[in-house]
Amino acid sequence: MQEIRVSLGDRSYPILIGAGWLDGIGARVRAAVGGQAIRAVVISDSRVAPLYVPAVAASLRAADFAVAEIQIPEGEQHKNLAWLALVYDRLIEAHIERSSPIVAVGGGVVGDLAGFAAATILRGVPFVQVPTTLLAQVDASIGGKTGINHASGKNLIGAFHQPRLVAIDIDTLKSLARREYVAGLAEVVKYGAILDAELFARLDRNVPAVLRQDAPLLSEVVATSCRLKAMVVEGDEREGAYRAILNFGHTLGHAIETLTEYRRLLHGEAVAIGMVCAARLSQVLGWLPRSDVERIEGLLRRLGLPTAVPSDLSADQLALAVEADKKAVGGKIKFVCLEAIGKTRFEVLSAVEIANAAVAQP
Amino acid sequence: MQEIRVSLGDRSYPILIGAGWLDGIGARVRAAVGGQAIRAVVISDSRVAPLYVPAVAASLRAADFAVAEIQIPEGEQHKNLAWLALVYDRLIEAHIERSSPIVAVGGGVVGDLAGFAAATILRGVPFVQVPTTLLAQVDASIGGKTGINHASGKNLIGAFHQPRLVAIDIDTLKSLARREYVAGLAEVVKYGAILDAELFARLDRNVPAVLRQDAPLLSEVVATSCRLKAMVVEGDEREGAYRAILNFGHTLGHAIETLTEYRRLLHGEAVAIGMVCAARLSQVLGWLPRSDVERIEGLLRRLGLPTAVPSDLSADQLALAVEADKKAVGGKIKFVCLEAIGKTRFEVLSAVEIANAAVAQP
Repeated sequence: MQEIRVSLGDRSYPILIGAGWLDGIGARVRAAVGGQAIRAVVISDSRVAPLYVPAVAASLRAADFAVAEIQIPEGEQHKNLAWLALVYDRLIEAHIERSSPIVAVGGGVVGDLAGFAAATILRGVPFVQVPTTLLAQVDASIGGKTGINHASGKNLIGAFHQPRLVAIDIDTLKSLARREYVAGLAEVVKYGAILDAELFARLDRNVPAVLRQDAPLLSEVVATSCRLKAMVVEGDEREGAYRAILNFGHTLGHAIETLTEYRRLLHGEAVAIGMVCAARLSQVLGWLPRSDVERIEGLLRRLGLPTAVPSDLSADQLALAVEADKKAVGGKIKFVCLEAIGKTRFEVLSAVEIANAAVAQP
Repeated sequence: MQEIRVSLGDRSYPILIGAGWLDGIGARVRAAVGGQAIRAVVISDSRVAPLYVPAVAASLRAADFAVAEIQIPEGEQHKNLAWLALVYDRLIEAHIERSSPIVAVGGGVVGDLAGFAAATILRGVPFVQVPTTLLAQVDASIGGKTGINHASGKNLIGAFHQPRLVAIDIDTLKSLARREYVAGLAEVVKYGAILDAELFARLDRNVPAVLRQDAPLLSEVVATSCRLKAMVVEGDEREGAYRAILNFGHTLGHAIETLTEYRRLLHGEAVAIGMVCAARLSQVLGWLPRSDVERIEGLLRRLGLPTAVPSDLSADQLALAVEADKKAVGGKIKFVCLEAIGKTRFEVLSAVEIANAAVAQP
C-alpha cells in the first residue's frame, strides 16, 4: 500500500493506493473520522453499488458504524439538483449527524455529487472518497472540488470540501468498461503534458502495457498522477493562479461536453480533444514545436482517444459555450498553453479566438 | 458610522453601522471586492425590493458595477431548494463571474438563501450582507452561516461562507412591521442573557425607549450585539464548542418552528419561548436562581414576546423535533443553560428531557 499525503494544514488527508484492499476500508475510515461517529452513509450508483458496496458496507459495520446506503442512477446526466435533492432527503431519513462520514463509492459523478452533499448537509460532514474509475482515482477524488451540473454548464454549482481520506483500490479498474478506462488515461496524459515529461515518455513507450492494465505499471502511473495532483492542490487549494494549469484541455473539453449534452463523449474523451486543440493553439501562438503537438496527438490516438472536434459543432457554438465557462472574467479566459511537454504557460484569450483555433484544420 | 472588525484571518471583514447611508453603499462594496469585478447581483424579496433595491442598485452602478436584480417572495417558507434552484438559474442568466459579488438586501431569509447561493455558485463568489431587519442586523448577517430549510428542519442544508462586508443602516428598521422588530429584540435579549449582564440591564431599564426605536439607544444596542456576535464567531468560526452558546433558546425554538411549519411564529418569537424554557430548565437543574428566570421571562413579556410553548404541541412531538436537530449527536444535545444572566454552561441532555421540561408547568 502506498500512502500519499495531501498537506493542507488542518484539512490534510492521506491518499491510500493498493490492490484488493477494499474489504479493509472500515478501519481506515474509522481512523480518519475518529471514534465519535456512530453512522456512515455510503453513496454509490447503480453500476458500482452491486460490485463494491456490500464489501465496503460490511467493512464499515465491522468498524462499528451503523451504515445507510444511497444509490443514484449511473451517468453524468444525473449529477444535477434533482438528484441532489433526493440525496438530501435520504441523508436526513438516515438521521445523518455532523460526525457521520459520507463515503462515495464510484466514479467522478458519484464523488462530485456525494461530496457536494457532504459539503452542504448540516453545513458540512466528513467525506471519504473511494474512487472506482481511473478518472476519479487520478483526478476527481483529489483536491476537494465537489459539485453538480446546471443545464447551462458543468459543475456550475459546487463547493470546496476536502475529503478526510481517499481510498484507491486499483483492482476496481478491472470492472471498468474499456472505453471508461481509456477515457481516464486522458487525465494521466494531461499530468505528463503539463508537469512531467518523464511520465509522458513512460506512457508513450508503454501503450500496450498501459492498455492491458499491467498491474505494477498501472499502480505506479496512478500513484505518480495522484502525487502530481496533490502537489498542485497543495500549492493552490482554492484555484487561484497555479491550480488553473489543471484546466489544460478542459476549457474546450467542457464546452464540447456541454454542446453534446454530456451524452456523446466521456469527460476524458472531450478533454483529449481539448488537449489537442490547446496544443495546436500553443503552436499557432509560437510557443510549442510542431513535433510536440504531434507527440501528444499521437499518444492520445494510440491509446484509443478521439482528437478532433465533432464536425457538427461550429465555432460560434463553441465560442458561446466557452464564454459561459465559470472561469471566464469579462468574456476572457486564462487559457492553459504548453511551451514544451511538461511545461505550461497562460495566455489570456477571448472565447472567439479559442473557438476559432479549435475548429481550424491543422 | 461605527465600524466593527470581524477578525478571521484572510476571511476578515468589517461590519459598518450607521443611519441613512444605504445610497453610499456602492463605494463600500467596491472597496470590499476590489477593482476587477464587473457585475454585481442584488438579491432581495418582494417586501424589501421596492423599498431599498433602487437605492442600492443605483449606488452599485455609480461604483461601476453592471447590476442584475433577483427577487424571491417574502417569507421563511421560500427559503428552500426550489427557490434556490430558481436563484441559480437567474445568476447564470445574469452571467455571474467568480469575481461578481452577490449583495443580499433583506432579512435573514434573503441573507441565508443568497449567502448559500454565493457559497455554491461557481464554487463560491464574494458575498455582501445588507440586513434590513433587526434579527438579521444583530445575528443572521454576521458569522458566515448560510443555508436553506428542508421539510424536516430549519437550515439542514447550508455552508459556512463569510461575507466580505456587512452594511447595516438602522433607518431600514423604520419600515419593519412592529411584530418583526419585536421578534428581533429576542436575539438582543439573548446576547444579554448569555454574555452581557449590562446589555440585559440596559434593555430591562429602557423597554419603552427600545420599543419606540429611540435612535441613539438602538444604534448602541445594535452595535453592542454585533460586537458580541463578532467576538463569539472570532473565537470559533465553524461552530465547535464555544460558538454553540449562541444556540441558547434555539434548540427548542427551532423545534417549535418546525412543528408549527414556520408559519405561526416568527423566529425570534420561537426563540423567546425557547429561552424561557432553557432558563427554567437551568433552574430545575439547580444552576439558575428563580429570580433570574423571572427577570428573563418578564423582560421578554414586556417587550411583547411570547413566553409559553403553544398548548397544542405535545412533549412527544417536541422530543422528535429536537432529536432531528442537526447538532444532535447520538440522540443527545449539548444544551445551553444559564448559571446567571450573562453566563452560560452546557448540559448534555436527551431530547426527551428537554421536551419534558419545555411543556412542564413552571
